[in-house]
Amino acid sequence: MTPEFNLIQQYFTRNSTQAILGVGDDAAILPVTQGMQLVTAVDTMVVNRHFLSDADAYGVGWKSLAVNLSDLAAMGATPRWALLALTLPEINDGWLRGFSEGFYACASNFGVELVGGDTTKGALTISVTVMGEIAPQQALRRDAAKIGDDIWVSGWLGEAALGLRAIQKEITLPAEALKICRAALDRPIPRVELGLRLRNLAHAAIDISDGLLADLGHILERSVVGAEILIDHVPAHPVLQHFLLGDPLGMQCLLTGGDDYELCFTALPENAGQIQMIGELLDLKLSRIGKITASGELLLLDAQNQVINFQHLGYDHFA
Amino acid sequence: MTPEFNLIQQYFTRNSTQAILGVGDDAAILPVTQGMQLVTAVDTMVVNRHFLSDADAYGVGWKSLAVNLSDLAAMGATPRWALLALTLPEINDGWLRGFSEGFYACASNFGVELVGGDTTKGALTISVTVMGEIAPQQALRRDAAKIGDDIWVSGWLGEAALGLRAIQKEITLPAEALKICRAALDRPIPRVELGLRLRNLAHAAIDISDGLLADLGHILERSVVGAEILIDHVPAHPVLQHFLLGDPLGMQCLLTGGDDYELCFTALPENAGQIQMIGELLDLKLSRIGKITASGELLLLDAQNQVINFQHLGYDHFA
Repeated sequence: MTPEFNLIQQYFTRNSTQAILGVGDDAAILPVTQGMQLVTAVDTMVVNRHFLSDADAYGVGWKSLAVNLSDLAAMGATPRWALLALTLPEINDGWLRGFSEGFYACASNFGVELVGGDTTKGALTISVTVMGEIAPQQALRRDAAKIGDDIWVSGWLGEAALGLRAIQKEITLPAEALKICRAALDRPIPRVELGLRLRNLAHAAIDISDGLLADLGHILERSVVGAEILIDHVPAHPVLQHFLLGDPLGMQCLLTGGDDYELCFTALPENAGQIQMIGELLDLKLSRIGKITASGELLLLDAQNQVINFQHLGYDHFA
Repeated sequence: MTPEFNLIQQYFTRNSTQAILGVGDDAAILPVTQGMQLVTAVDTMVVNRHFLSDADAYGVGWKSLAVNLSDLAAMGATPRWALLALTLPEINDGWLRGFSEGFYACASNFGVELVGGDTTKGALTISVTVMGEIAPQQALRRDAAKIGDDIWVSGWLGEAALGLRAIQKEITLPAEALKICRAALDRPIPRVELGLRLRNLAHAAIDISDGLLADLGHILERSVVGAEILIDHVPAHPVLQHFLLGDPLGMQCLLTGGDDYELCFTALPENAGQIQMIGELLDLKLSRIGKITASGELLLLDAQNQVINFQHLGYDHFA
């Protein structure tokens, strides 16, 4: 008990300006804005599964909040508060300092306040709950894709998965490429601003945490529609190019690699111009990669509009 | 991804009637009642720390939610929603069935809806976030105790700690006593109804998870006051009596044993009658155990009004 209390005092009590009551009571009290709905999600990161035991603590702190903010971004919600449940094998001050700095850096970057939490002893496990707000009827839901919609993806895909393979020594990357991939893996940028601007403009949205095909698959399943994806339009970062020729690895990272935290969304074709303008405004690449169809299937098409057999790409199932 | 999705589908998707959007999207969307404030807390239970690896799964499910609802009870909040972050070493259907049944039994008992969550692979760790509502200015805060207040405790204290010592084979209990202690340890009843009825009647409140002296100590620290506790007024369950004579064990369980999940609260002496009536209405023992003082110290007094030296009770520090 005493160590828990000291930990919270020492590392996780910064002034709450937006909470009525923050860290230090049985529960936090939060002023939800009149007329807004609450949007909330939880995500857990486990050592040696979501990050390595020797991973930079600052990065772990940043990412543990960022992956949750990515869920709010995919709803089009404004992030407001977070709770942190931290299970630690021991009290390591250096690690806690780095972790809390990374966590708060991400929090202040996206206007989020840490308002409560719990620390316990056990295998390193970080569970973050985020809360945000949205006006009624404005959320970007997975079940809202419409036949004929364009399918869009933000940013680049595949670098995080490529970075993971480099860390696991499956491949070797040039120093500059490794740096890009590590940044994508360790410091993902949740697309909060994009999500906010897509309200009233996009239909369905999801964040790409499990890989493009798996996550797009969730939209298709919930919306009861199909899709055609033009493989050449899927934004492969230049660092991936070398691995896209004659090797299934690049294509696997691009289509099924997780940890990208970009948004995949659908919108009416007539909104394409406005969406492109948002991309320019945010200095964020936005790519139209395909169409929502009535087929119920997810088809990948090559440059000749021929259907690509998934098995040839090296995976069995995705949706 | 696929196992996670199946797990949620199979065990944790019951109809949400109060959520706008429940399990199955990036985040849940919840309709906070107009004019109410959000009250939220998170608590984590770790295997072999908060429960044994062979503990009954139903009980673990019940308790994982109950300890969180206890935090809302201590604020006087109305519970509404929960998120579940479940880290599992393997998919054990029998365990998951029992766990989910216990969790939902507690949820439906207290009018709570499970609206989202996350499942990951790792050492068994259960992190539950609860959300409730309260009208402005009505919360029972730790910092609200006033000099001259009576100090109250609900129910009995010490059985859960005694039960833990029996499980750990430190002591032997008669079968009937063991049953009572195990029930207190495995199926704590959060005092939600009591918390609600104490609004506008009590000043400060806290739930007793770390032991009476430690938790009352948090109220004293935050309210910048002291207290005098009449040891004979602290409600020791009859099963504890045998251990209160000539053995520090009983007194330790009573005053410093955790896991009771009763409420400790303070109120004006003139409200004592109304508080007693609430106890009768709820069929819940409510005991006046002492007074808030200006001293800044926590003093334990015996039947002769003599100060008891804590060291003699077998512990060094508590607040």
